[in-house]
Amino acid sequence: MKSEEHCGGFEEWARERARHFEWYAETSMPPAGREPKRLVGSMRYAVLGGGKRLRPLLCYAAGETTGADGDLLDRAALALEMIHSYSLVHDDMPAMDNDTLRRGRPTVHVRYGEALAMLAGDALQSQAFCALAESNADPARIVRLTALLARAAGPAGMCGGQALDLALVGRTCGEEELARMQSMKTGALILASLLMGAQAGRWEALGARAQSGFVVYGRALGLAFQVVDDILDCTQDTATLGKTAGKDEKDEKPTWVSILGLDGARTRARALHDEALEALGWIESDEAASAAGAARLRALADFVIGRSY
Amino acid sequence: MKSEEHCGGFEEWARERARHFEWYAETSMPPAGREPKRLVGSMRYAVLGGGKRLRPLLCYAAGETTGADGDLLDRAALALEMIHSYSLVHDDMPAMDNDTLRRGRPTVHVRYGEALAMLAGDALQSQAFCALAESNADPARIVRLTALLARAAGPAGMCGGQALDLALVGRTCGEEELARMQSMKTGALILASLLMGAQAGRWEALGARAQSGFVVYGRALGLAFQVVDDILDCTQDTATLGKTAGKDEKDEKPTWVSILGLDGARTRARALHDEALEALGWIESDEAASAAGAARLRALADFVIGRSY
Repeated sequence: MKSEEHCGGFEEWARERARHFEWYAETSMPPAGREPKRLVGSMRYAVLGGGKRLRPLLCYAAGETTGADGDLLDRAALALEMIHSYSLVHDDMPAMDNDTLRRGRPTVHVRYGEALAMLAGDALQSQAFCALAESNADPARIVRLTALLARAAGPAGMCGGQALDLALVGRTCGEEELARMQSMKTGALILASLLMGAQAGRWEALGARAQSGFVVYGRALGLAFQVVDDILDCTQDTATLGKTAGKDEKDEKPTWVSILGLDGARTRARALHDEALEALGWIESDEAASAAGAARLRALADFVIGRSY
Repeated sequence: MKSEEHCGGFEEWARERARHFEWYAETSMPPAGREPKRLVGSMRYAVLGGGKRLRPLLCYAAGETTGADGDLLDRAALALEMIHSYSLVHDDMPAMDNDTLRRGRPTVHVRYGEALAMLAGDALQSQAFCALAESNADPARIVRLTALLARAAGPAGMCGGQALDLALVGRTCGEEELARMQSMKTGALILASLLMGAQAGRWEALGARAQSGFVVYGRALGLAFQVVDDILDCTQDTATLGKTAGKDEKDEKPTWVSILGLDGARTRARALHDEALEALGWIESDEAASAAGAARLRALADFVIGRSY
């Protein structure tokens, strides 16, 4: 592992990266006022509405680990956040979760109507692939990142997980089934954030153990993220979350808390945290990986999972 | 223009290509019975339900003109049809056109419910980009095709056109505005079908005049397609169309017939036909273009436009 880099504080790094991402997204998306105005407005409203920017941060941290090029990394981060944002827009619609509040503001269909919310989501997905395809980076690298994103977003990833989620409403479900659904619904895109970031850089220089470290870390983090989300949904209020609290129970959705209880869910989060950090060790022990990047990934695991127990 | 190829009859060619496309789509999409079963089932229902396969045919004909590789051309054709099919699924939903009949069968949301229809459309868009990214062709070529498709599908193309269409309902609109909306809503993907097909082959070998011939031909054909669609919507019955006839008038949508009258719309279709054939002449006079491919494009223009006057 290369250790010459200055690691800096995580909070400071995350603030700077999030600020950079906001600027990049703001200036790379179609500008406000461009036709069709309401469509462009709703797309910007969906993406530029704040949020944790977890996927961009994971992408930047992974990219730092493999010395990724800034422009391709920015495009990957934006593409990931556009896919994530479109999924929230569609998921919030009456035909799906029927949610009216997101990031402390009215959801897109409440603000712009259902037809435009559907189109905004659709157009954001196209824009995500456009952001990658318009890069000047090595085409082979662009194609690899595009395949990672497309697979993570499609029927074997996010959309597939949402379909399984629909099928679970109102019926009992075991741990394994819940984990499988969530590994697709949210896990696939979180894993893709890490792999796209890392493969935007010198991925080939890493050994097989470090490469699989990214996969194991990403899977554990993805699942932990959802366990934590379930814990927060039943322990925090709406104002803190910025979205409607207690919604899972009301919607009769199975959650980690409903299956394992609150303490059991916290134990599970802790175990996944340990698993993620162990896999991170495989990355850290690779000479080709940057210490600064790995330190970000360690802090991100603490940030995602540590807040719950 | 190369003239050594045997052109064959258009009908025969179109039947063979459509049959090949059905086989390719059938075997390339996630197989029926794969989890999540209902999602995969709804995606297959949306794409494999027949239809004119106009975009694949345009893509194959353009590809033949530039000697495109079979596998990349198949992938481009499938990606285009998946984008087109997803747009129909979303467009038919109650929040948009609220249509219950498509290709002579119940629309996807009628058959599978609204939530699944939304997800099927979303997943089809991801799969379209996946189909391109998983090709073994030259990565630079894949990236160019991906950019063409993403731009044609996004806010400056299909989704943007649908947003403009929403804004037109119930109010008067002039020719120019209608043409602009339609050139985005359906024209962009028709143009992309030609450019993706042609750029899957030796596009670089063509002169600038032949290259712009594809653009002019594609724009004229795309607009003509919509003029013809408007004519058929008010002259054919539901059984012939396979979708609800007379819907535009009922929905108070401006059409070429409502603006120009039936005769005026037919005159416009004829003028666009002439324009497309003139541009085709620029392609035909290029030594690097194949005569067989150009003959297909000529027949396709007759097929798309000729049926209306």
